[in-house]
Amino acid sequence: MTALPTSGRAWYLVARPDGWPVPSDVALRDVPVTEPGEGRILVRNRHFSVDPYMRGRMNDVKSYTPPFQLDQPMDGGAVGEVIASNAEGFAVGDSVLHGLGWREYAEVPAAHATRIDAPLPAYLGVLGMTGLTAYAGLFETASFKEGDAVFVSGAAGAVGSQVGQIAKINGASRVIGSAGSDEKVKLLIEEYGFDAAFNYKDGPVREQLAAAAPDGIDVYFDNVGGEHLEAAVSELNVNGRATLCGAIAQYNNTGPTAGPRNLALVIGKRLRLQGMLVSDHFGLKEKFVQDVSGWIASGQLKYRETTVEGIENGFDAFLGVLRGDNTGKMIVTLG
Amino acid sequence: MTALPTSGRAWYLVARPDGWPVPSDVALRDVPVTEPGEGRILVRNRHFSVDPYMRGRMNDVKSYTPPFQLDQPMDGGAVGEVIASNAEGFAVGDSVLHGLGWREYAEVPAAHATRIDAPLPAYLGVLGMTGLTAYAGLFETASFKEGDAVFVSGAAGAVGSQVGQIAKINGASRVIGSAGSDEKVKLLIEEYGFDAAFNYKDGPVREQLAAAAPDGIDVYFDNVGGEHLEAAVSELNVNGRATLCGAIAQYNNTGPTAGPRNLALVIGKRLRLQGMLVSDHFGLKEKFVQDVSGWIASGQLKYRETTVEGIENGFDAFLGVLRGDNTGKMIVTLG
Repeated sequence: MTALPTSGRAWYLVARPDGWPVPSDVALRDVPVTEPGEGRILVRNRHFSVDPYMRGRMNDVKSYTPPFQLDQPMDGGAVGEVIASNAEGFAVGDSVLHGLGWREYAEVPAAHATRIDAPLPAYLGVLGMTGLTAYAGLFETASFKEGDAVFVSGAAGAVGSQVGQIAKINGASRVIGSAGSDEKVKLLIEEYGFDAAFNYKDGPVREQLAAAAPDGIDVYFDNVGGEHLEAAVSELNVNGRATLCGAIAQYNNTGPTAGPRNLALVIGKRLRLQGMLVSDHFGLKEKFVQDVSGWIASGQLKYRETTVEGIENGFDAFLGVLRGDNTGKMIVTLG
Repeated sequence: MTALPTSGRAWYLVARPDGWPVPSDVALRDVPVTEPGEGRILVRNRHFSVDPYMRGRMNDVKSYTPPFQLDQPMDGGAVGEVIASNAEGFAVGDSVLHGLGWREYAEVPAAHATRIDAPLPAYLGVLGMTGLTAYAGLFETASFKEGDAVFVSGAAGAVGSQVGQIAKINGASRVIGSAGSDEKVKLLIEEYGFDAAFNYKDGPVREQLAAAAPDGIDVYFDNVGGEHLEAAVSELNVNGRATLCGAIAQYNNTGPTAGPRNLALVIGKRLRLQGMLVSDHFGLKEKFVQDVSGWIASGQLKYRETTVEGIENGFDAFLGVLRGDNTGKMIVTLG
């Protein structure tokens, strides 16, 4: 048995950001690594996830996930290999998915770890929480059905790119995406097979959406909030549904954010706006993995990952995902 | 057979209001009365309905009901007696409910008339469209269930007063209402059995709602929009539902109306905001009439009507309902 490392690095939250997070809000610290306690395993992380929702966890407000604690390591999805086990059912060398990212070594309660075949970043993205978010938000929350026209914002992101493709695979009449660069718009059309896409920085979202969706839309999958949501409410058809999944445009706002000024349209068009969290939809996991694995294998569903190397670049990677630097899932890979 | 009257009065829309309607937007005209055409009946109206939604029909915009036409009589719910029939199944003296209000005599296609036992205003309110709106918006749109805490705005109005009472009869844990006068607040508590009520003019809606609903709310029935909706989004519990039924606070606005600034809460709390129109719920009519008749008979459900006498006062009655002068259903009664 190889000796365990004596210490490893982990990202700590040391101050609560006001607006955009800055380097002094976090610290990369060297912490001792110890033998796992009873019922626990020690994991060498290979990849961890940085996601927009983590910005919310940096605030000290009651929310759906508990806030990050000050002077504690941050956490989130990660995959790695077991290097010491004190838990039945886990052996050294096993690959696992767990929730203690943002660090090189994680001591994980066995009940919070899932064995996987290899520590691949896909388990954090297309086959993981982001993939399930797209799948559940489309089928369950938005009640997507064949023939619907679908609009998704943040469409080149990890969730958005899957929403559009899954809709298309399942018979959407038209799939429209918005993104923040011409390069991403090109990717949506050429790689992901969207019927139309636009750069939201090119002009008013409502005008661009109306041009891209001359017959309106039936489903809107909202990853950004703000102006996009207002535009979607305008263009949704009677009985349209919107999944409210993220509001990345607003996460760093320090004051209240103006809401859509056209909500009275919700009445006459009988729209349904519904919030979602992936944790309500774990019952779908098996069907999701089966469907998505099949679509990947057949080449129908494509995905990208943006990988940042080295734990020391983890915080920059997180800022990058808030800025939209990523295409597809943003992953931090450890040496 | 009595001779038919030669003419009768009817309210015409002659200009489209900009903001609050003014007397010069309408005209009460004397128009000839003729024998009913084939398949039609001639009705002497006894009562007609004036409703907030009619303000929207004065605008020339695509909406769920077609706009009133310029230089044509306005329409809406009415009850009366058949005074001439040219249609199978209807005889002189029958009482009918139909859609050609705002006039003394109506020539109605038989297919658009429903026979009723007497031309009572209740068929325009508690047992009519407003009652069905409350019933369907609560049970179908908001998925109300026993134990839910319910908040309704415009609670002393025709729809709101029924929403609160129907929720209470069906096991709501708490029913809270808001209204625009202390007299109405007293009525909500003392006559309609609400657990709590407040005058929205007394202070910020959110603060008053939070005080009245210390454990939050599960259902919000929105008749007014604006600040009320924002307050409800703040106070709704996880998995809460809001029925968006009316936005009377906004009907006379001439510019865009600020939306709720806290819609990001919809995500984390997995709220559902859903618009409704009563016309989608006609399938419930039979069960609705059966239930509500029973609750009225047993004294569990109370209702009020505000009656304005004389067709010449019809437009004032309509302005009154927009101002909130009414308690319960606003009815114009003809001599």
